[in-house]
Amino acid sequence: MAVKQQMMYEGKAKKVFLTDDPKLVIVDYKDDATAFNGEKKGQIVGKGALNNRIASIFFRLLESKGIPTHYVETLSEREMLVKKVQIVPIELVVRNIAAGSLAKRIGWEEGTILPKVVIEFYYKDDELGDPLINRSHIDVLNLATPEQIADMEEMARQINIHLKAFLADKNLLLVDFKLEFGVDADGNLLLADEISPDTCRFWDADTKEKLDKDRFRRDLGSVEQAYEEIFRRLGGVTQ
Amino acid sequence: MAVKQQMMYEGKAKKVFLTDDPKLVIVDYKDDATAFNGEKKGQIVGKGALNNRIASIFFRLLESKGIPTHYVETLSEREMLVKKVQIVPIELVVRNIAAGSLAKRIGWEEGTILPKVVIEFYYKDDELGDPLINRSHIDVLNLATPEQIADMEEMARQINIHLKAFLADKNLLLVDFKLEFGVDADGNLLLADEISPDTCRFWDADTKEKLDKDRFRRDLGSVEQAYEEIFRRLGGVTQ
Repeated sequence: MAVKQQMMYEGKAKKVFLTDDPKLVIVDYKDDATAFNGEKKGQIVGKGALNNRIASIFFRLLESKGIPTHYVETLSEREMLVKKVQIVPIELVVRNIAAGSLAKRIGWEEGTILPKVVIEFYYKDDELGDPLINRSHIDVLNLATPEQIADMEEMARQINIHLKAFLADKNLLLVDFKLEFGVDADGNLLLADEISPDTCRFWDADTKEKLDKDRFRRDLGSVEQAYEEIFRRLGGVTQ
Repeated sequence: MAVKQQMMYEGKAKKVFLTDDPKLVIVDYKDDATAFNGEKKGQIVGKGALNNRIASIFFRLLESKGIPTHYVETLSEREMLVKKVQIVPIELVVRNIAAGSLAKRIGWEEGTILPKVVIEFYYKDDELGDPLINRSHIDVLNLATPEQIADMEEMARQINIHLKAFLADKNLLLVDFKLEFGVDADGNLLLADEISPDTCRFWDADTKEKLDKDRFRRDLGSVEQAYEEIFRRLGGVTQ
């Protein structure tokens, strides 16, 4: 059992603590919510606990499908034990349906089904506003090797297939989602960060109701209820 | 000799006229200058004539190096006879030194030499503000085939090598440049549009003085003189 030690890092939605095992850290999911590169700030009561449990379900699913992730175990309501990784400073976005910045970028109406999966790389840099980048930018910035990029892209495509199928069964559409990867002490590329309504767009398959952070971003109300609904549909039991 | 007929198209910096030969059109270079997606408008006296002559020099150079272009011949002060093509709605930007939007995007100081050539694709769409796109966007928008993209990128790399060497000899740095390609009636992919101080960043190799449209964009003055200086260094004789 890893013993929690001092905080190593505090992000917008998570704290990360060292443990007595140098290869393991503890992620503590917060209720804090931000949007538009930190310009909009708020709290979603209960989000931390829900995202911890939702992400645990997704990580266990993906591990069972052979995707290497940083997930080790769920420790408590808000705490997850994960492998310590060096995060690759690239956000990989996978899209099945036009929404958000893609709808604006290519001029397609939100909700349009994309004929092919769109994969985008964003430079994880708050000061620059997480800009869209391409492979030649990644090369020049030395953010990842071409092999890592190819592996990340292939894993992202596999993750999309597994998540889409799993969610379809819960009558949910996986519109798009953001992934982050990390490299562990042994040099393995692992899926890291989280998979939750903070990092995905989930729509009800029939009503197209948004059940994700867009409810917070766009002031649609019933934010907590949306996170709870996702947890409930994934098989979780809420109080 | 192709006979000029009615205007087919008027762009921001050029008019294009049909001729009695369905495979040929005449490009008429204008003095109009725009920047920031048309928000800034002006005139650069003599620009049309200078760009016609500068682009002619570049097209002839590239043809001599085996790059297929739309160039046929220079007809008059402002007129160029070119092969009629269907323009691929992608702007390909090749960068050797950080400047403009790249400097902002990746947070590097303007003037920083890029360790590798950066190649970017922009969606040629005024309403969307010519956004940066990647290969998966190109695929979804059906703008070009993967083979055309590979050919365009390879031609762009070759063009960069030839232009850089040619310009170094004139004590000029090729900071970056924009290319457009088109497909002719026989299905050949040709370099189209123009290569000029409107579409390239040229800096004096010693003083780093800007000798291109940035003088207009950034209100640096001596705009006409910069275009004349480029023409003069390329071997042209100004009045």
